[in-house]
Amino acid sequence: MPQAAQTPAEQPSFQPRNPDFERRVRDSFARQPFMAHCGIAMPVVEPGFVEMRVAYDEPLTQQHGFLHGGLVGTVADCACGYAAFSLMRAEDSVVTVEYKINLLSPAEGDELIGRARVIRAGGSLMVCQAEIGMREGKAERACATALCTLMVLKDTPDAPRT
Amino acid sequence: MPQAAQTPAEQPSFQPRNPDFERRVRDSFARQPFMAHCGIAMPVVEPGFVEMRVAYDEPLTQQHGFLHGGLVGTVADCACGYAAFSLMRAEDSVVTVEYKINLLSPAEGDELIGRARVIRAGGSLMVCQAEIGMREGKAERACATALCTLMVLKDTPDAPRT
Amino acid sequence: MPQAAQTPAEQPSFQPRNPDFERRVRDSFARQPFMAHCGIAMPVVEPGFVEMRVAYDEPLTQQHGFLHGGLVGTVADCACGYAAFSLMRAEDSVVTVEYKINLLSPAEGDELIGRARVIRAGGSLMVCQAEIGMREGKAERACATALCTLMVLKDTPDAPRT
Amino acid sequence: MPQAAQTPAEQPSFQPRNPDFERRVRDSFARQPFMAHCGIAMPVVEPGFVEMRVAYDEPLTQQHGFLHGGLVGTVADCACGYAAFSLMRAEDSVVTVEYKINLLSPAEGDELIGRARVIRAGGSLMVCQAEIGMREGKAERACATALCTLMVLKDTPDAPRT
Repeated sequence: MPQAAQTPAEQPSFQPRNPDFERRVRDSFARQPFMAHCGIAMPVVEPGFVEMRVAYDEPLTQQHGFLHGGLVGTVADCACGYAAFSLMRAEDSVVTVEYKINLLSPAEGDELIGRARVIRAGGSLMVCQAEIGMREGKAERACATALCTLMVLKDTPDAPRT
Repeated sequence: MPQAAQTPAEQPSFQPRNPDFERRVRDSFARQPFMAHCGIAMPVVEPGFVEMRVAYDEPLTQQHGFLHGGLVGTVADCACGYAAFSLMRAEDSVVTVEYKINLLSPAEGDELIGRARVIRAGGSLMVCQAEIGMREGKAERACATALCTLMVLKDTPDAPRT
Repeated sequence: MPQAAQTPAEQPSFQPRNPDFERRVRDSFARQPFMAHCGIAMPVVEPGFVEMRVAYDEPLTQQHGFLHGGLVGTVADCACGYAAFSLMRAEDSVVTVEYKINLLSPAEGDELIGRARVIRAGGSLMVCQAEIGMREGKAERACATALCTLMVLKDTPDAPRT
Repeated sequence: MPQAAQTPAEQPSFQPRNPDFERRVRDSFARQPFMAHCGIAMPVVEPGFVEMRVAYDEPLTQQHGFLHGGLVGTVADCACGYAAFSLMRAEDSVVTVEYKINLLSPAEGDELIGRARVIRAGGSLMVCQAEIGMREGKAERACATALCTLMVLKDTPDAPRT
């Protein structure tokens, strides 16, 4: 099938420039208060890929009782950011330029799962794709898909200016 | 200036189909637990326009100490949703189809202000534009801009199926 | 790998509602003068999937001698439109609501290849994803990726009002 | 009205870094064969703003007889590109990173008019907004709106590598 060559699943695996990338990504994630505030965990960090999860919780919902679309967008944005960050040099940091998200179905179920992967790793820009699903019991259903552009901030610490 | 005719500021004002639109929008907003969880207020509701505000608060920040991009996206999405909802019939409800947001500068300052307006009100789809700014003292700086597509759910209550 | 369930390659195959979908898609394509004007062909039409191709031609280029980004966007938009149209009833037609495209590398090479697939087929909206590549000899390189939202126009002919 | 401060009409005017920007923008435009192929003209070039026009012509249409959405996207992309290019140094050139476009109504009428303005001019990225209208006689109707991100290619000529 000729189209297979184009799917994200066929992307070559990435070599991280920073061998200590996982610790750096997890450390940055831990310094984002909004992640804890929203109950977002990040169980998987690989070169150019991260997975995030959020258990259903009533304060995170909208008026129909589903997880809020803003939470879905937050997971898409953050997962893309850390997928990109995992491929950066230890001296650089990352900023989101823009993203676009299509909400495919209500975020109804037990747990939101967001998976983001780098689909283009340039010297100054990275493009990531995120797929967001909802798990209900053992079944998972597609909930949203996003495309995100991120910029490499060269020689910039991933922490407040002090 | 010929281009002036195209700017959002020149959009005709909208006639709400539901004279009680403001109460309906505010009631729906109040039933979204995630709004309170994120400290989001909605001081202004007009036909086809809403304004939302979030005071700076440490749990809402990212690793540089700015308000989190996910919060900025949440405000853009919700403000667009309620701008659209304000123009709907009392029998209909609204769902976000997709949005795209460009983050223009860090969300640094005292208060985030999101303003969304309907730029196209169709029978089944609405398109809204949101401008997000950060107020620091009396000055305000552009922080993000978004385009959002929303769908009219005909004869659908704005509440959980029971 | 849990993430595999989320990739487009794993989407279930679609059942066309119109058994004569291929003839209807090809007939519509043939009635678009801009397709011929841009040298765009559509070698593959399957349920929920189409492939388009454009041979390199100097009138289609930009100032660096690459195929123009507007052409890349045109192929992304049209391929998504016909992927969606292939799943519609014989009585309905399709209109593009919006799309977002990331240009990943210059459209440099012998032939542009666009592949679009439906990732969400709703009753009134469809969401498609397009991957655009450039073939140079036997090698193909990713050139752009797009997400597109389309609306079903119920009981509407795919031809001018007369 | 506080929201007025956020509208594009209120953006500060830009100072071009290259005093000869108009000649450079027009020269680049003239070297894009696809512009002539699509009958696109660029009557206005100002710092951070350009206007493009396309007269209705049958080869540029889709199956309903309207101007093709791919042409609308091409004008949005190009107008944004030259609005950004007008603010760059004489040594730099521009490349489109991504864009998102909402099609608001069919491109039906005598002439398509695209107006793009820079809404954020950063050192390495620029964000532009385009409004596309259709003129029919003396009336003009909104047809599409777009957001576009462009990258500054430092010390890169706006011409093929030779």
